[in-house]
Amino acid sequence: MKKYAIGVDYGTLSGRALLVEIPSGKEMAAAVYEYPHGVMDRALPDGTSLKPDWALQHPQDYLDVLTHTIPAVLKESGVSPEDVMGIGIDFTACTVLPVLKDGTPLCFLPEYKGRPHAYVKLWKHHAAQDKANELNRIAEERGEKWLANYGGKISSEWAVPKIWQILDEDPEIYEKMDRFIEAADWIVWQLCGKETRNSCTAGYKELWNKRAGFPSREFFAALDPRLADLADTKLSQEITPLGSRAGYLTEKAAKLTGLSCGTAVAVGNVDAHVCLPAVGIDGPGKLLAIMGTSTCHILMGEKELQIPGICGVVEDGVMPGYFGYEAGQSCVGDHFAWFIENCLPADYYEQAKAEGKNIHKFLREKAQAQKPGQSGLLALDWWNGNRSVLVDVDLSGMILGMTLQTRPEELYRALIEATAYGTRMIVENYRRGGVPVEEFVASGGIALKDPMMMQIYADVLNMPIRVTSASQGPALGSALFGAVAAGKEAGGFDSIFEAARAMDTSHDILYRPIPENAAVYEKLYEEYEKLHDYFGRGENDVMKRLKAIRNANC
Amino acid sequence: MKKYAIGVDYGTLSGRALLVEIPSGKEMAAAVYEYPHGVMDRALPDGTSLKPDWALQHPQDYLDVLTHTIPAVLKESGVSPEDVMGIGIDFTACTVLPVLKDGTPLCFLPEYKGRPHAYVKLWKHHAAQDKANELNRIAEERGEKWLANYGGKISSEWAVPKIWQILDEDPEIYEKMDRFIEAADWIVWQLCGKETRNSCTAGYKELWNKRAGFPSREFFAALDPRLADLADTKLSQEITPLGSRAGYLTEKAAKLTGLSCGTAVAVGNVDAHVCLPAVGIDGPGKLLAIMGTSTCHILMGEKELQIPGICGVVEDGVMPGYFGYEAGQSCVGDHFAWFIENCLPADYYEQAKAEGKNIHKFLREKAQAQKPGQSGLLALDWWNGNRSVLVDVDLSGMILGMTLQTRPEELYRALIEATAYGTRMIVENYRRGGVPVEEFVASGGIALKDPMMMQIYADVLNMPIRVTSASQGPALGSALFGAVAAGKEAGGFDSIFEAARAMDTSHDILYRPIPENAAVYEKLYEEYEKLHDYFGRGENDVMKRLKAIRNANC
Repeated sequence: MKKYAIGVDYGTLSGRALLVEIPSGKEMAAAVYEYPHGVMDRALPDGTSLKPDWALQHPQDYLDVLTHTIPAVLKESGVSPEDVMGIGIDFTACTVLPVLKDGTPLCFLPEYKGRPHAYVKLWKHHAAQDKANELNRIAEERGEKWLANYGGKISSEWAVPKIWQILDEDPEIYEKMDRFIEAADWIVWQLCGKETRNSCTAGYKELWNKRAGFPSREFFAALDPRLADLADTKLSQEITPLGSRAGYLTEKAAKLTGLSCGTAVAVGNVDAHVCLPAVGIDGPGKLLAIMGTSTCHILMGEKELQIPGICGVVEDGVMPGYFGYEAGQSCVGDHFAWFIENCLPADYYEQAKAEGKNIHKFLREKAQAQKPGQSGLLALDWWNGNRSVLVDVDLSGMILGMTLQTRPEELYRALIEATAYGTRMIVENYRRGGVPVEEFVASGGIALKDPMMMQIYADVLNMPIRVTSASQGPALGSALFGAVAAGKEAGGFDSIFEAARAMDTSHDILYRPIPENAAVYEKLYEEYEKLHDYFGRGENDVMKRLKAIRNANC
Repeated sequence: MKKYAIGVDYGTLSGRALLVEIPSGKEMAAAVYEYPHGVMDRALPDGTSLKPDWALQHPQDYLDVLTHTIPAVLKESGVSPEDVMGIGIDFTACTVLPVLKDGTPLCFLPEYKGRPHAYVKLWKHHAAQDKANELNRIAEERGEKWLANYGGKISSEWAVPKIWQILDEDPEIYEKMDRFIEAADWIVWQLCGKETRNSCTAGYKELWNKRAGFPSREFFAALDPRLADLADTKLSQEITPLGSRAGYLTEKAAKLTGLSCGTAVAVGNVDAHVCLPAVGIDGPGKLLAIMGTSTCHILMGEKELQIPGICGVVEDGVMPGYFGYEAGQSCVGDHFAWFIENCLPADYYEQAKAEGKNIHKFLREKAQAQKPGQSGLLALDWWNGNRSVLVDVDLSGMILGMTLQTRPEELYRALIEATAYGTRMIVENYRRGGVPVEEFVASGGIALKDPMMMQIYADVLNMPIRVTSASQGPALGSALFGAVAAGKEAGGFDSIFEAARAMDTSHDILYRPIPENAAVYEKLYEEYEKLHDYFGRGENDVMKRLKAIRNANC
């Protein structure tokens, strides 16, 4: 009798369910549901307008994902609900919402429908930047030790700046909420009727540490006296490690989804971190780069080391028993989209059209024809600031080496190379910090679709890159965690490590560095490093001063 | 009875004659003749192919300019040849040719028709770069004092590298030529039947100095023993100051042109330097910027000062009795042409079309709507190296400050601003060197056509800019020198100073700096200066290393 698990991956604009066979991980059916409310960044459903940098979501959309996609994958696959032993959830993060004791979102209450702070704050809600700045300043002044676990700076996207913004701007909502919870944990709560908090989001987004717990009351009080008991009240001291079972599907949830009552439910997870077992990573030393508009670099280590410029290190943050390290590049594919939108001349479109090619393919072919170093160009990949290893949103892009002979495809390739240098900077930063990187696995849209770029990355990193064939990494990872929650006896796995090892990686593509290219990139990387430090480490803060001049004059 | 003079301006692709009324300088008629052979950079007329970096011209084209344009302006204006008292000539420089004792170009001899070195080497013939490098090395080693008069480095475009290349590659042509002469002086020779050498090209392009003469025999011998007597043989020790009369029109030349035998002929001049009287500049402290694809900055001073990074200082080099200083930006309008060709997206063309606007106008309007500092961008204007004040062809372009919000018009404006910073660098370099710059006059295509750019220049320089209304500066300047050659008694001028003062500048446009813009640009210029020195003065030679990597790998 075959057994199955379901993973549900909640993205920024839609949710996706994947039904997979266990233990093979074979994909049986998938379904996507787009959030009817999408990202609310201008107004609430009732027309209440939002300020710049806001980004909200509606929790009803998340429930609707369940009711639409799970019946759809059951139907498509023909799998019987009884044979689905477990379900796992992953979510964008930090995506958080205020709820009552029973889990009811505040925005479901008629009296709060017109109150922006009653809604889900999506990961990319950036309106708490001043709170984050203030928090970083205070933490640094107080010498808070946990700050070093986050590369020395926390992001405005995380939970504490977001809840502090609520307290500041709408104290009634702050008072009214019983809990402030990650959307991942909230959906799990809706499934199994029981609140859990997963170690991944707690660790990476809420400043929790397995050994030290949350920051102290004194620290929270230093932000605002009313926040003193935050960790014990609106958040939770009970954190569950990844790979655990949160509970079993309630009758209500079973009706909602068409699954059987009693199906095992895994604790929540984050869309990036959940991918590692899906691509076959089962332990330390194997870095996963999830490459899309931005790139996330996740790696496990044996020890807790404080590495400058990473996003975070969290025990049990990726797989139980290991320290999960996360770093990131805030702008990767976005560079190329910007370039194509803003810098690509009309005659390229005409030529592409004449040759019957899509413009990306046309440009890639031209870029591919170049040899490393041929353009004489070098760029810094900071069009959207630098997340790792400089952790500085005020840095900006740079490109040099242009002559009157410089062509668009050369600028384009220079941007690709710059993101590769940025990745190498992160890899070397891990290594310098004492966390080995022995293998490099890539997933995500870019990894799957752009062989030229992957070859450049292999050449720049001077190490092989394995591109996973698992095209639905997050949903597959969630399904695997669902199968772990069900356990071996029910037909699932004993552990997430076992699940990872069961994955078939024989269809993965391996990009090997080409020695002569690697030799040229070695030299170019040296130049990148020099400029990276010159502009990024305070020798010449021209980028910051230009932004200050801009802000003062506009 | 009204009197007239004619100026003939020889450009890169065509020659232009202008007939003007004296003393008003009023334009009566103009005519242009395009060189049938244009720039020969691939092959000779007989098909003999040329190597990269070559640029030749055919001297017959120069004669044809005379026979086509002078009769045309006489006819158009209805002016009688007897009333044309003088003629002046200006030319691109250093544009040089090998001739026999009687002035016959070697390429006119049937036996040399297929020999590239027998033709005119146009100013932009760059195939003698290795000779220039070698010359600079030897001059520096020997501690040649004259080197400092040229900012420490001479260009491959000048006469000595060009003749050295001939000696090296075609010694027979070298032996056969009696004289190696500037095209300006050669045309004057054709007009008045007498060889003269003007102080402008001799000083700026042939290393001659009014007091010290040419470099020593020992220096030339150090280049090649066969060059020891160069100055006394193929060149000439007899140099005539600008503002002098070379002679009178011969009967043969009168027939050729339709002018009267005995018309005064001024000594030759260079197209940039000849402009100063035409725009009303009559003495020191008034800088003329001739702005086009590149920009030339000419200024007179009372003293001979050795200023680093200028192109040259020459006594009598612009007007008799003063020291003429020349500096330059090798890439100005070329930046914008490059940008429009390589970086302007298709939808801008579509929008421009929809609004019925030409693309330049469309882009300029968008750029004009920005405030200084608003884009957060800063560029180094080195797409074609840096002529002044760094004198380094191996530098390349740089732009920084890009974000995902950066728009094409912002990049475009940043390039404009960069050229303005480059101009300010030159002005400040003159001042630091002890040559006052009290007035800034602009001429050339950009000055006349781009008010936005001129306002940016005024704001960046923080000084008023007067844009001349004289649209034919070089030809008008040549005509004025022609009227000086004729002299006061013949209805002309006593001196070029008197001619300059006679010019009507009441239609010139004055751009005054806007104080709040100037204040922002003051800060931005500080940033430019810092990066200029960082990349340009050896702190980080990344641009040179990138070119070396490129050259080693391609």
